[in-house]
Amino acid sequence: MHDVVIIGSGAAGLTAAIYAARLGLDAVVIGKDKGMWSHAYRIENYPGIESISGVELADRTIAQAEKLGARIVRDSVVELTKSSAKTSENKEFQARYFIIASGTEHRHLNLQNEKELIGRGVCYCAVCDAPFFLKKDVAVVGAGDSALTSALLLSGYASKIYIICRGDKPTAEQIWIDKISRIRNIELIANANVAEIKGTKFLEGIRLDNGKELKVSGLFVAIGSIPSTAAFKSIGLAMDKEGYIVVDQAQKTSIGNVYAAGDITTGSNKLRQIITACSEGAIAAESISKELKKGKS
Amino acid sequence: MHDVVIIGSGAAGLTAAIYAARLGLDAVVIGKDKGMWSHAYRIENYPGIESISGVELADRTIAQAEKLGARIVRDSVVELTKSSAKTSENKEFQARYFIIASGTEHRHLNLQNEKELIGRGVCYCAVCDAPFFLKKDVAVVGAGDSALTSALLLSGYASKIYIICRGDKPTAEQIWIDKISRIRNIELIANANVAEIKGTKFLEGIRLDNGKELKVSGLFVAIGSIPSTAAFKSIGLAMDKEGYIVVDQAQKTSIGNVYAAGDITTGSNKLRQIITACSEGAIAAESISKELKKGKS
Repeated sequence: MHDVVIIGSGAAGLTAAIYAARLGLDAVVIGKDKGMWSHAYRIENYPGIESISGVELADRTIAQAEKLGARIVRDSVVELTKSSAKTSENKEFQARYFIIASGTEHRHLNLQNEKELIGRGVCYCAVCDAPFFLKKDVAVVGAGDSALTSALLLSGYASKIYIICRGDKPTAEQIWIDKISRIRNIELIANANVAEIKGTKFLEGIRLDNGKELKVSGLFVAIGSIPSTAAFKSIGLAMDKEGYIVVDQAQKTSIGNVYAAGDITTGSNKLRQIITACSEGAIAAESISKELKKGKS
Repeated sequence: MHDVVIIGSGAAGLTAAIYAARLGLDAVVIGKDKGMWSHAYRIENYPGIESISGVELADRTIAQAEKLGARIVRDSVVELTKSSAKTSENKEFQARYFIIASGTEHRHLNLQNEKELIGRGVCYCAVCDAPFFLKKDVAVVGAGDSALTSALLLSGYASKIYIICRGDKPTAEQIWIDKISRIRNIELIANANVAEIKGTKFLEGIRLDNGKELKVSGLFVAIGSIPSTAAFKSIGLAMDKEGYIVVDQAQKTSIGNVYAAGDITTGSNKLRQIITACSEGAIAAESISKELKKGKS
């Protein structure tokens, strides 16, 4: 029986682990990978670090958490009850408290051929896959920070990058909009959506809803994310209408011994950033530490 | 007329500046120094940086903010109205929005002789003053993280360090309690308060309320902090009973165009850490950016 099981090993989960370790709690982190932040090409808004790749920031934080004594189990939680977390490898972790920090997953276009061509031209992570498109033409779908930074990264590999943007203009931070406007091989196509994904064995091109066809061998889908809450349906946590877990100021969910932190929550005014995820992880660990102390006294 | 004037140049203010710059806002930061975080001896719970001094983390963040175009004015805001911030150098900065991020100041013991002996033995910042006490005996008053890390730092300089702790035991993170227990020249005196500060030109010693007298040439007061809100009394912001500025999820105060972030607020479940201050600064800047965009559309 652990003090706390932390579900998810991204920014929020690892920060919760750092704080839990320093507060003397017996904590276990369960997460299958390094989380969504490790997909970031460059992070330049994390205070104190001018510029770093997502993978490197994740690796540094993992090392820091482990040095402080955090135990990270590489597995996925598939079901949570009020007293235990069950994993895909059929293990069960019992704990007094839980912190759900399993973040979000990439939103899909939900077009025909999309699933079939994943890894055959259709991608969701430019950091992971950009080098495969050396001297090829690619399209990025999306208008936010993630779409524009994906295009920036791709501009170092691909011959030509089209950004397919639903609205008049990108919704990303101004600094990214300025940066892409200065790069010759990036072309922004506004007021357009992908209508068709073409190809059989490999992606061959896309058709837009304005009729235009683009021959591209890569399609990077960067249209946002959805909370990864499948494992938490049965326990009955309160969620908002988009499926994010509702938390209070202490990061507590609607179930007394279950806390949540990071992109999966309604916290931080829904500004889902690394710095806000870390902050929520710290708050969740400290809230639980206080509860445990209350229980002991 | 600026988009936003950020009052305070610590963790929250600088992060607000970083986000504001990247969001394309015209922002000015006004702050007299590097803020309270620069007083931290070692920071080892900031995700992604295993161990760093407060000054170095502050300096790195200042450089990062300035590289992104942030303008930092070294001055103090002495009065805030709904449209302008007046400084101690009689300058006036007009803005559509304000972010108060002026943090907290060290709490005093409020004993006779305390003020008179500041800089003559009475100190509030071990990082600033520890080297002056080489091979001398000192006392640290307090029981929290700041008291214990001050004692740790002092153990590298002073001959003997007494920690005067009001309760049974320190309230600091377990990791700091463990660390000080392993250091030979640190002695914890529990269930005691400082009753008298002795000395005329320089500190000569202290008397505890248990009658014990300690000959020390340094007294480090680390009994917490109070919000620095003097400049914001006249504008009439809602504060809690301890004087912290009440904010909502967007970091908005009770006055529509005034936001607040960091240690000075009631946010982040009152867990006042660097990571929470940074997060609040980011949220405040993003909230204002949204408001400005609404206004323009």
